[in-house]
Amino acid sequence: MSADKSRKSERPLSELLRVPTGPVSMADFDPSATPGYPGEGKADADGRTAALGPEISDLQERLYAAGRTTPDAAPRLLVVLQGMDTSGKGGVIRHAISLIDPQGVDLTSFKAPTKEELSHHYLWRIRKALPGPGKVGIFDRSHYEDVLVVRVMSLVPEDVWSPRYDEINEFEAELAAGGTTLIKCMLNVSFEEQRNRLAERLEDPSKHWKYNPGDVDARKLWPAYMEAYAAALEKCNTDAAPWYVIPSDRKWYRNWAVAELLREKLAALGLGWPAADFDVEVEKRRVTDS
Amino acid sequence: MSADKSRKSERPLSELLRVPTGPVSMADFDPSATPGYPGEGKADADGRTAALGPEISDLQERLYAAGRTTPDAAPRLLVVLQGMDTSGKGGVIRHAISLIDPQGVDLTSFKAPTKEELSHHYLWRIRKALPGPGKVGIFDRSHYEDVLVVRVMSLVPEDVWSPRYDEINEFEAELAAGGTTLIKCMLNVSFEEQRNRLAERLEDPSKHWKYNPGDVDARKLWPAYMEAYAAALEKCNTDAAPWYVIPSDRKWYRNWAVAELLREKLAALGLGWPAADFDVEVEKRRVTDS
Repeated sequence: MSADKSRKSERPLSELLRVPTGPVSMADFDPSATPGYPGEGKADADGRTAALGPEISDLQERLYAAGRTTPDAAPRLLVVLQGMDTSGKGGVIRHAISLIDPQGVDLTSFKAPTKEELSHHYLWRIRKALPGPGKVGIFDRSHYEDVLVVRVMSLVPEDVWSPRYDEINEFEAELAAGGTTLIKCMLNVSFEEQRNRLAERLEDPSKHWKYNPGDVDARKLWPAYMEAYAAALEKCNTDAAPWYVIPSDRKWYRNWAVAELLREKLAALGLGWPAADFDVEVEKRRVTDS
Repeated sequence: MSADKSRKSERPLSELLRVPTGPVSMADFDPSATPGYPGEGKADADGRTAALGPEISDLQERLYAAGRTTPDAAPRLLVVLQGMDTSGKGGVIRHAISLIDPQGVDLTSFKAPTKEELSHHYLWRIRKALPGPGKVGIFDRSHYEDVLVVRVMSLVPEDVWSPRYDEINEFEAELAAGGTTLIKCMLNVSFEEQRNRLAERLEDPSKHWKYNPGDVDARKLWPAYMEAYAAALEKCNTDAAPWYVIPSDRKWYRNWAVAELLREKLAALGLGWPAADFDVEVEKRRVTDS
């Protein structure tokens, strides 16, 4: 680490937040940590997040351009957002994902499956929502619900959900092989901070619509959810599709971290600009004469 | 008009940019005008556009909340973006529409229709893309292509396209009656400025991918396109679904104007926050005890 606090950590954020391989316990992750954050804290974080905008915008436009000019060969990005209620999936979309040109984003919010969706394999609706060439897909919840809420609430028997981890690994390996970079983010909020955020929603009439009495009931199942998250983070943490745990008790850190991960992964694509498929000098003359 | 240049015009922008009823000629609109702009010009415009963000964000969240809590009664917004090549439909999305939370936006870019789309009525694909309750729909091109490029290029005979103006009016009246506020924007770029922008794309290798030699050929049809635009603006300019012409030779004005129109139309919905459908005091105790 540099002595200069304003400098970025020398290790990329993706290394700092990557879930280590091996057994996982959610107790190992501190929801209030701020690994890799190069600034002072809350006071400068919104500015630092916004300051990532121009670079993200430039990199994403290269990706978009590749999608438009060579769709068969263009990479794709897929950001998977998972987390308990109030962890801030919506906040991340509003503050980090909004740095990307809306034209380049394919956003899907997965709710409880419809009757039609339930009549298909659980990956059916997921496959339908995958990002197009050159696009950044955002999944607000995802196929992981099929090993999270489904497991905790016993919506299907164990012999149905337990093979899904392997199946998800195969599915994600297939996506990666097809040129999709996966950024799977578990927004890690603490049990105590969730209580604070629910209480805040009740204090503020402009937030009542976000409050659902069922959220309090779900808190009784917190340990079961943590166990289910640990299983998903442990079993589906491949090099092709790694998991990142984003400490999310501090909203400013959470938003910055997702934006920085996005920047890092876009930069790693190493994309240039598509070459002209026309004679530039000829066209210059044609435009001048037009 | 106020003597203080920094004050907003007393007339809302929607009045200043509204196409007057009666005969329309595109020559009546100055593409380099800046009606209603309250500031100095280019120097402060990006800041003024960005400064609309918090109010747009607050208003749009009310709309979104209505969509989530009372979907059957929630209003919707639909921004229709039309304009010649380089007029800046993409730029408006990147700089103005991006002020809205991505969760609240349903963006559709209409390209040349596919074989399947052509096998249906031309409004079929349009209806499929209409915004959901509480959403802001953005159409990058729209059903107006069916009386613009289709008319200019004679893609169907006149007796097919000419009844479409009435049909579009009926369709839009139906949308308005169902609670959709339409904001139809014609981004008005001049023939000369289009030449400059095409030339810029050729000068800058990072913009080559946006250049299409066919765009120069299309310039030969400029008068025919202006005639087709005038017809659409004249025949489909109803109170339920009015047209706005956005002077677009100055990108900074164009972006600010669309953002300000959006702010004005969102504010006109007069939305409050949904009332709680639970006992707030009871829930406060439940959260504290959880």
